[in-house]
Amino acid sequence: MEEEASKLQLYGTEASPFVRRVKWALELKGVDYDYVEEDLSNKSPALLSYNPVHKKVPVLVHDGKPVAESTVILEYIEETWPDRTPLLPGDPYERAMARFWIAYGDQKGYAFQSFLACSEEGKEKAAEDLLEIFKIIQDEALGDKKFFGGNTLSLVDLCYGWITSFKQVERVVGVEVLGPTTLPRLHRWMQDFKEVAGIKENLPDTEAQYPELVNLRKHLLSTKN
Amino acid sequence: MEEEASKLQLYGTEASPFVRRVKWALELKGVDYDYVEEDLSNKSPALLSYNPVHKKVPVLVHDGKPVAESTVILEYIEETWPDRTPLLPGDPYERAMARFWIAYGDQKGYAFQSFLACSEEGKEKAAEDLLEIFKIIQDEALGDKKFFGGNTLSLVDLCYGWITSFKQVERVVGVEVLGPTTLPRLHRWMQDFKEVAGIKENLPDTEAQYPELVNLRKHLLSTKN
Repeated sequence: MEEEASKLQLYGTEASPFVRRVKWALELKGVDYDYVEEDLSNKSPALLSYNPVHKKVPVLVHDGKPVAESTVILEYIEETWPDRTPLLPGDPYERAMARFWIAYGDQKGYAFQSFLACSEEGKEKAAEDLLEIFKIIQDEALGDKKFFGGNTLSLVDLCYGWITSFKQVERVVGVEVLGPTTLPRLHRWMQDFKEVAGIKENLPDTEAQYPELVNLRKHLLSTKN
Repeated sequence: MEEEASKLQLYGTEASPFVRRVKWALELKGVDYDYVEEDLSNKSPALLSYNPVHKKVPVLVHDGKPVAESTVILEYIEETWPDRTPLLPGDPYERAMARFWIAYGDQKGYAFQSFLACSEEGKEKAAEDLLEIFKIIQDEALGDKKFFGGNTLSLVDLCYGWITSFKQVERVVGVEVLGPTTLPRLHRWMQDFKEVAGIKENLPDTEAQYPELVNLRKHLLSTKN
């Protein structure tokens, strides 16, 4: 007798922070899913058919129906399993604040890329720009709360979770931006975040990230000029 | 006796398509609000205090609490007044599709700006790029439906509403991209959209847009080189 096909598949890559946030949401919700690792240099026909517009990971396929774009997927997961570990507050204003900060982080992705692609001369400026963003994240988004969501995790925490492995990026570029004395509250959050059950067991392999980031930096530098 | 202060204020500019979509949502919901026109060359202290991170319009202030970013504001309006003319479907999957297409339009904003800023030599390429996006919007997002939301308007329609005055942009650049025979279904949608009660009375003044677009094109061209 054949087993029933799994209802939920996540198409992703190990290295993508956008995939990681979706994984974390599914783990925190305790939802079973099959994970399919994609090779971005040779994308599967399934991925291309599920996300013909962007042809990108992550894609979540639920009962055969695909959802693409990580923030859209996160809202979908929250609306489909709202009672299992709620990841957005119930109050519309608080939800708006969560969505504002999720959008902020994604809008500032270019500064992260500029830092990873910075030349020797551009290093200082790129680090300064990124520090300014980290300060806003710490002072305005996190504030005095334990997590971005308050006392418990929210989708905002998942979206900023990539910060916990940012030291690998600093190592590749050779500059420290996110120092523990410069941004103490963000550091405290990083420690707390990494200890949450569901996150702890699903952190990225930072040692595997390092050579990939080295290659990505080389690639970005070579295409820039 | 003093009158009670209005509970809802929208800070915007007449020309902004991001403000327009919020206006439309409030009009369709039948929610009373005060509109405050901002001068972007001399932003008000109120705007700067309500949106210190981006310093941009639109900002919606509800009982003194500000919400910024148009898509965040639209979701807030929908969640605060869900029963007055629902603007998102109830089904989580359909909601995800709506959010996907709202994000798509905003991600492609750069192509619109490239078109408005294109040089004489770059005109053809910029028009081709934009046409490709309009085709995806027509064929994938709209499909055979009356509105992006189906038989009735949704937030997706509001977010693509700027297309209805795109002919002013074509006039400024001197190229037609969105021809009625090239994109017939998108044209049919434009006519239907402009006839909806609440939209009809609140369309932008296209004649006023023209000189502003001329100036914007001049500005973009002068800063590009």
